[in-house]
Amino acid sequence: MSAQPAATSPAPATPQALIDSLKDLLGERLSTSAAVREQHGKDLTFHQGFPPDAVAFARSTEEVQAIVQLCASHKTPIVPFGTGTSLEGHIAALKGGVCIDLSQMNAVLEVNSNDLDCRVQAGVTRKQLNEYLRDTGLFFPIDPGADASLGGMTATRASGTNAVRYGTMRENVLGLTVVTADGRVIKTGGRARKSAAGYDLTRLFVGSEGTLGVITEIQLKLYGIPEAISAAVCSFDTLEGAVNTVILTIQSGIPVARIELLDEVQMGAVNRYAKLDYPDKPTLFFEFHGSKAGVEEQSESVAAIASEYGGSNFAWTTQQEERSRLWQARHDAFWACKGLKPGAEGWATDVCVPISRLAECILETKKDIAASNLLAPIVGHVGDGNFHLTYLIDPKDPDELKRAGAHNDRMVMRAIAMGGTCTGEHGIGYGKIPFLQAEHGEAVSLMRTIKQALDPDNIMNPGKVLPA
Amino acid sequence: MSAQPAATSPAPATPQALIDSLKDLLGERLSTSAAVREQHGKDLTFHQGFPPDAVAFARSTEEVQAIVQLCASHKTPIVPFGTGTSLEGHIAALKGGVCIDLSQMNAVLEVNSNDLDCRVQAGVTRKQLNEYLRDTGLFFPIDPGADASLGGMTATRASGTNAVRYGTMRENVLGLTVVTADGRVIKTGGRARKSAAGYDLTRLFVGSEGTLGVITEIQLKLYGIPEAISAAVCSFDTLEGAVNTVILTIQSGIPVARIELLDEVQMGAVNRYAKLDYPDKPTLFFEFHGSKAGVEEQSESVAAIASEYGGSNFAWTTQQEERSRLWQARHDAFWACKGLKPGAEGWATDVCVPISRLAECILETKKDIAASNLLAPIVGHVGDGNFHLTYLIDPKDPDELKRAGAHNDRMVMRAIAMGGTCTGEHGIGYGKIPFLQAEHGEAVSLMRTIKQALDPDNIMNPGKVLPA
Repeated sequence: MSAQPAATSPAPATPQALIDSLKDLLGERLSTSAAVREQHGKDLTFHQGFPPDAVAFARSTEEVQAIVQLCASHKTPIVPFGTGTSLEGHIAALKGGVCIDLSQMNAVLEVNSNDLDCRVQAGVTRKQLNEYLRDTGLFFPIDPGADASLGGMTATRASGTNAVRYGTMRENVLGLTVVTADGRVIKTGGRARKSAAGYDLTRLFVGSEGTLGVITEIQLKLYGIPEAISAAVCSFDTLEGAVNTVILTIQSGIPVARIELLDEVQMGAVNRYAKLDYPDKPTLFFEFHGSKAGVEEQSESVAAIASEYGGSNFAWTTQQEERSRLWQARHDAFWACKGLKPGAEGWATDVCVPISRLAECILETKKDIAASNLLAPIVGHVGDGNFHLTYLIDPKDPDELKRAGAHNDRMVMRAIAMGGTCTGEHGIGYGKIPFLQAEHGEAVSLMRTIKQALDPDNIMNPGKVLPA
Repeated sequence: MSAQPAATSPAPATPQALIDSLKDLLGERLSTSAAVREQHGKDLTFHQGFPPDAVAFARSTEEVQAIVQLCASHKTPIVPFGTGTSLEGHIAALKGGVCIDLSQMNAVLEVNSNDLDCRVQAGVTRKQLNEYLRDTGLFFPIDPGADASLGGMTATRASGTNAVRYGTMRENVLGLTVVTADGRVIKTGGRARKSAAGYDLTRLFVGSEGTLGVITEIQLKLYGIPEAISAAVCSFDTLEGAVNTVILTIQSGIPVARIELLDEVQMGAVNRYAKLDYPDKPTLFFEFHGSKAGVEEQSESVAAIASEYGGSNFAWTTQQEERSRLWQARHDAFWACKGLKPGAEGWATDVCVPISRLAECILETKKDIAASNLLAPIVGHVGDGNFHLTYLIDPKDPDELKRAGAHNDRMVMRAIAMGGTCTGEHGIGYGKIPFLQAEHGEAVSLMRTIKQALDPDNIMNPGKVLPA
C-alpha cells in the first residue's frame, strides 16, 4: 500500500491572479518553467513526482508571509521546499499550488558560543552551518546523510548516525519562527535550554512536514567539538552477535556517538564501491567522542563486548584520514547499493523498533527479502533500533516494484507489531500515510483535529502526514 | 502581577446528579469531605488554594475515562492531581469541579531492561519507581526535589538537578496514555527511541498541565546506573567566578550530571540547617557519572577550570555516604531557607536564561532583593541557566508579599528580556499566566487555538496555562 501516491486527483490550476500577484512580489524569483516545477515536485526516491504550478523563491520571513497570505486568500496549496532530499514524497504537489523554495534564505543569523546555540534561516544546510562554525570549536551534530537544509530537517524530524548520542532534531531545536497557514509570523520556544512555559509548539512543528506552517528560522543547539574522536569497525559471523553487542553497549551507558550496522549484502556493496577489504559480513561501525583517555576507554570497553559476541578484527583509530575514509564509505551506502544493480532505482525505507526486537525484526525482514526475490541491502542506526533498506528496482519491472511494495508493507506492520514505528526518521510524506493509523490508532484523530484547527482550508502541504 | 490568582469568580457548584453518578461509579472513592477537598486544592506554596467540589480517586484508565465522560456530559471542570507538590497553583480548582486523584494508580506496569524503558501508571512517584528498579541496575534520573508523581512530572514538564545531563521530562517520555476532554483514550508515541511518524502529540501533552487531557500512563526512558559516581563542592569569592566555571565546564563538553549553584545566603542557610561547615560563599555542587577513570578525569578537569576562576577548596569524593549527605543538604535547601526566618512562608519561583546571561541576571536579581528589603536565597540548576529563589514572607505582613510579587515580576521580565523564560521547570499554573504573553507573544494565540480544538468546553483544568 505504501508504493501508491495518496492522491492522484488532477491538480486544480493555481489562479492566474495569484501567479500575477506573486510575480509582482518576487519578479524573476517566481518561476513557472516546466524544468523548475518538475525539479521541485520530485524527491530523491522512486515516489512519483507531482510538480507544483509555480515555484516562489523567498528571501525573508516577510516574503514567505506575503506569499502565504496571497495563497491563503486564494485557498491555494503551499508546499515548502528546502533541498528536495526527503524520501517519502514530502514535496510532491499532490494538489498543485505554489512551492516555496527556501534555499535562498541561507544566512546564519547568529552564533552564541557561550550558550552553545545559533539561529539560522531555514535554507542553511547542515554542511554550510558546520563550515561556518569551523573556527569556533563548535559543531552541529545531526547528520541524516544528505546535505539537507536545516528547515527541511526540522520539518521532517531528521536524525541520522549521531542521534544515539546527540538526539534527533526533536531534541536539538530550541525555537522556531513559523509562518502560519493564515499568514501570521509566530516565534516558538526561545534561547533558554529548558522551559515549562506553555504548550510545546516547537515540538509540534518539528516533524509536521510543512502541514501546519512554514518554518523560516531555527534556533539550534550546538556542541563543542570533542577533544578526541575515534572510529572502529568490527565484523561478526552473525547478525545477532552484532545486535547483542549494540544492546550491551547501550545498556552499559557507554556514550557511543555513532553505532551503525551494515548487513553482509550492504557491506559487500560498500567494499566494492569504496574499494575496502573488510569481510562481507554483518559489520558494526562505531565512533567515540570524548577526551583522549575517554575515547580510548570507550573503544576498549566496546572491543571487549564485541569479542564476547563473536566480533573479530575490532580495529580502532583516531586518525582523521582513516576515520573520514571509513565514514565516507558508510555515507556512500546508498550509492554503493545502486552499484550492485546497474540501472536500478533505489527505494529507501526505514522502520525503528525497540532494540530488544531489532535482531528478530531484521532477520525476519531479510528472510522476506529472499522469499520475495528482491535485492535490498540493510543499514541501521542500530543504537536507536532504527534500520533502513534500499530496494533496488528495475524501472522496467513493474512486478518487482509491486513485490517491493508488498514487502515494505509487511516490514512496517512487523515493526509496529513489535512496538516500533513505521518510520524512525524518513517521515510520513505521502508514502507512509497508510501506516499512520495502524501505528497511532485513535490518536490520529487528534492529529487531524490539530491540523483542522491550524489550517482549516487544508492549504499547507495537503496530502502529507494525514490523508488529504 | 504574579501573586494574584488569575480567576476568583465564585465556583459554579458541581451538579448533584454528577456527584451521584460518580458515587455510583466509585463508592467510597468519591469524597466531598471538606478536609479532602481542601488538601486537593492547595499546592506546596503560598498560592491561594481553591478546593474542588469533589475528589474522585481513580484506579484505572477506564475509571478516569468514565469520570471524564460524566464530567464532560455536565460540562463540569476536571483537575488532575498527583501528589500536590506543584508550585504555581496548578491544582487549584479555580472554577470548582471534580479533582481526579491519580495516586492510587501506582503500578509499575512493565520494565524492559534490554530497551531501557518502562511503563508506569500516572500515580507512581519517582522514588517509588527507583525503589522498584533497585535490582535491575537501571534508574530514572529526573529529580525535581519533591517525590512527585510521574504523571504530575509529565504534566508540568518537570526537570531538576540531573537535567543538564539527562534532560527534562520532555526528553524522557517516550509515550503516553491520555484521556481526552471528550472522554476518548488515546496512546501517543510508542516504545521506539525515535519516530518521524506524525505530529508529536507526546510533547504536546508533556507540560500541558492537565489542560488538554488526563495523563494516565507513561512510557519512560531508563538509564543504567553509572559504574562510578563522584560528587564535589567548591566555593567562590564571587558569583561570576562560579558562573564562569559553569560556562566553561559545559562548553568543554564535560558530561557533568549535576551542577548546582547556591548563593551565599542559601549556603549559609544550608550550613546551619544541615550542620555543615562550608564557607558562606557562592558555592557549586557537582556530580559526575561514568566509569571510575571517567569520573576521576571529569572531577579533575572541573577542578582545573574552577581554580582558574577563583574556586577554592575543590573537594571531590566517590564515597556514597558523603555524597548522600552533600546532596541531601542541597535537597533540603527549601527547608533550610525556611529556617532562616521562623514562621515565614516560602514562595518559590524560577526563571531560566541563556547561560551567558546567568551571572548578570542573578546579580541584578540579588541587588533588587536587597533594594526590596526581602530575604530570598537563590539556588540554581546552573548548567541549564535555571535558577530559583524562595521569598521568605511573614504571612502577617501583606506589604512584604506585595514587594515579593513586584520583585518576582521584575525578575521574570528581566529573564524574558535576556532571551530566557518565565519558568524553567515550575510551570505556569495560574501564578505565571500573566507572563506567558510577554514571553511568547502571538504564539499564545496558537496555544489557545489548540486548547479550543481539544477542549472546546474548557473543562480541563480551566484557568491554568491560558487565562480562563
